[in-house]
Amino acid sequence: MDLKPTKPLSGFIELLPVQQRCFDECANRMQQVLKTAGFARLDLPAIERAEVLTDKDNWDEIETQMFMFQKGDTKMGLRYDGTVGLARYVSGHLNDLVFPFRAYQFARNYRGERPQKGRYREFYQMDLDVLGINELSLNYDAEIVAVLARAYESCREFIGGTNIRVGSRPFWNAFFELLGLSKEQSKAVFILIDKKDKLDDFQGALAEEIGDKSIEIIKVFSDGYQSFLKKSVKLYSAISEMDKFMEQLAIMGIKNAKIDLGIMRGHAYYTGLVFEFFLDDFPSLGAIGGGGRYEDLAGKFSKTKIIGVGAAVGFSRVMIALLEDNKIKLDKFESPVMVSVLAMGENTVPFAMSVLSELRGADIVSIPYLDADKKFKNQIEFADKINSKYSIIIGEDEVKYDTVTIKDMTTGKQQNLPLSDAINMLKKAK
Amino acid sequence: MDLKPTKPLSGFIELLPVQQRCFDECANRMQQVLKTAGFARLDLPAIERAEVLTDKDNWDEIETQMFMFQKGDTKMGLRYDGTVGLARYVSGHLNDLVFPFRAYQFARNYRGERPQKGRYREFYQMDLDVLGINELSLNYDAEIVAVLARAYESCREFIGGTNIRVGSRPFWNAFFELLGLSKEQSKAVFILIDKKDKLDDFQGALAEEIGDKSIEIIKVFSDGYQSFLKKSVKLYSAISEMDKFMEQLAIMGIKNAKIDLGIMRGHAYYTGLVFEFFLDDFPSLGAIGGGGRYEDLAGKFSKTKIIGVGAAVGFSRVMIALLEDNKIKLDKFESPVMVSVLAMGENTVPFAMSVLSELRGADIVSIPYLDADKKFKNQIEFADKINSKYSIIIGEDEVKYDTVTIKDMTTGKQQNLPLSDAINMLKKAK
Repeated sequence: MDLKPTKPLSGFIELLPVQQRCFDECANRMQQVLKTAGFARLDLPAIERAEVLTDKDNWDEIETQMFMFQKGDTKMGLRYDGTVGLARYVSGHLNDLVFPFRAYQFARNYRGERPQKGRYREFYQMDLDVLGINELSLNYDAEIVAVLARAYESCREFIGGTNIRVGSRPFWNAFFELLGLSKEQSKAVFILIDKKDKLDDFQGALAEEIGDKSIEIIKVFSDGYQSFLKKSVKLYSAISEMDKFMEQLAIMGIKNAKIDLGIMRGHAYYTGLVFEFFLDDFPSLGAIGGGGRYEDLAGKFSKTKIIGVGAAVGFSRVMIALLEDNKIKLDKFESPVMVSVLAMGENTVPFAMSVLSELRGADIVSIPYLDADKKFKNQIEFADKINSKYSIIIGEDEVKYDTVTIKDMTTGKQQNLPLSDAINMLKKAK
Repeated sequence: MDLKPTKPLSGFIELLPVQQRCFDECANRMQQVLKTAGFARLDLPAIERAEVLTDKDNWDEIETQMFMFQKGDTKMGLRYDGTVGLARYVSGHLNDLVFPFRAYQFARNYRGERPQKGRYREFYQMDLDVLGINELSLNYDAEIVAVLARAYESCREFIGGTNIRVGSRPFWNAFFELLGLSKEQSKAVFILIDKKDKLDDFQGALAEEIGDKSIEIIKVFSDGYQSFLKKSVKLYSAISEMDKFMEQLAIMGIKNAKIDLGIMRGHAYYTGLVFEFFLDDFPSLGAIGGGGRYEDLAGKFSKTKIIGVGAAVGFSRVMIALLEDNKIKLDKFESPVMVSVLAMGENTVPFAMSVLSELRGADIVSIPYLDADKKFKNQIEFADKINSKYSIIIGEDEVKYDTVTIKDMTTGKQQNLPLSDAINMLKKAK
């Protein structure tokens, strides 16, 4: 009989236990920050109706990009981001929630495309949003960036520092209006700015679209945006908004943010400030998270106008890239086990089990070796291989005198003492 | 334009924030118990190759029961349990893992069948297993049951107590041999015992299969298994194994277990002791978890013989049933927010933001209300609706004198004091 394949499908991730512990630690820390900021966790279905996932007119395109299937008459598929489910959920629970409503998701999303390096078919994304009905102060924009900065900061020892770049849709809208660009020209220029760093000749490409007016766009990047403050009322307002936002970030202790009007954040639904986070040590990873303000989250689900500011964190993207390239020191995750309990002979098993029970009752991470007929050598080798910090060795003497022998696996030092003393020692060593 | 549906697909679950917090609390407690028992978390892909999920000869049957799809030439589907992925993963990492290897999964699984009450298409299941290469002491069977009992116990305040029933495959194998049943007869009787409680006339059904020998089977249930101890060497051994197991459970403090030879645990792969957990207060839910020993986890993936003892917990099944029937008091989860920060006027926002920053730095769960032009009445109403325990009110005087006014939302008592004092007070109130 042929054996079945043991590798996961390409584009799917599975980690070794030591890597998983690091992944989980970072996930927990980031989520803890969001909870401290009062974000409620939502755990929405991974499968949605096809009509929820997409508009019917782009069905063919979407079907190749997503995992879609049919049960009975119902077409459905795996979600590709957190926004669509959030829009549906909030629209269905307008009367159950208190607004401004703040929620986060830490969930798997799916892409059906052929996988490439750094692009997965199944990945964790963390989404956080503050949502208001009909209105939501711009002050929340700064707050959400400050929360996200704190979330990344909680993982600094593993992923290093981050820096934030802030762009503005209203600035460019005002600027395009000032230049008198048509709707089509505005759209074309928007796309060019979004791709700026990937273009060989940004100015040339701009000039092709809008001729001499391209010089003004270039000035924004060379001279800075402040020189345009007084060119129009809308520009004044857009620039003031950016400046106020930066001041609020500073008040909340965020020093690693700067205005970069090259940040466009592709999605059509953003209408206000947009922002992206980058890793200080691995800028080549590109934006590792970002978001912005939108004026209409759920127009397709509800007649109530839901305004929001939100962000998405490409959690797997960052963690898997760093783990695969061995950029994260895993020392801290090598030894999750405090003590191995070794039973020297079948007669000692009942005593070993009672010891184990006491250890776990005291919240001490403990693993027994219960193939008790194995030699001491094999058992201590197991304790060593799983990197347990201590071993508790139960022989016939220990059973007889109701004591344990505890061995420090680093120093090799051994001592015989009552279990309660051993537990006190282990609690202190935690 | 027609609005899109806001309800999830039938058979899919989504919770309100207060329910989600309870669900997550129980999930975390149970997982914490497994971590203390040294189980490594595995987070395996939800999508597997079709050939991994199923054998080719039962393809049609499986396709209706699961979510299956095709990308390019590859057929794949959503996993329906944790075992198949575990078998694949362990077979592919024999040299990366230390055996006995202990792992758990807390993951979503999927069933494509038409949903019924209490049966979901997407649900969380917790799987835990101890795996050995070629050998694994029976002592681990008692250990894993003790761990799982402790896991349920950690959620007692929400789900109540549990009781455990223990069955034995070796007992019945030995018994069928003693009775001289054919292979077909043994299989038929096995199935009848498994369905015993659902049959109107158990004895009659047995008699139809095996005639007068049915009386002996009935005796097992009426007279108890101990009376068969000396009937054969194999029975002696099977009964001794059960008795030893029960003694080991008692040593580890498990008092809510009893032998019930009607427990068969359907799956074909079990070869030793089997066990099921039931809720004391909601026996009608049926088995809420269970497992047993198997002699061949991964024969389809590897030539290495992997023996294990494992259990599966129907986590969503229990939690959703109890939450939907309002059997869990949610008081504890109503007020996750310690303090609301209310800004009385746009001029107070910078100060409010600095206060918020300090609160979060001190790990105090805090939500700001930043639509600062709203009246006091609206703002305090928000603090009340989200059930925050305290409010910090920032007005112009607070900004001027660098203090905060803190209001106890339960007593209505208000005091003005420096932020550092307020933080100390809130830390004590946690």
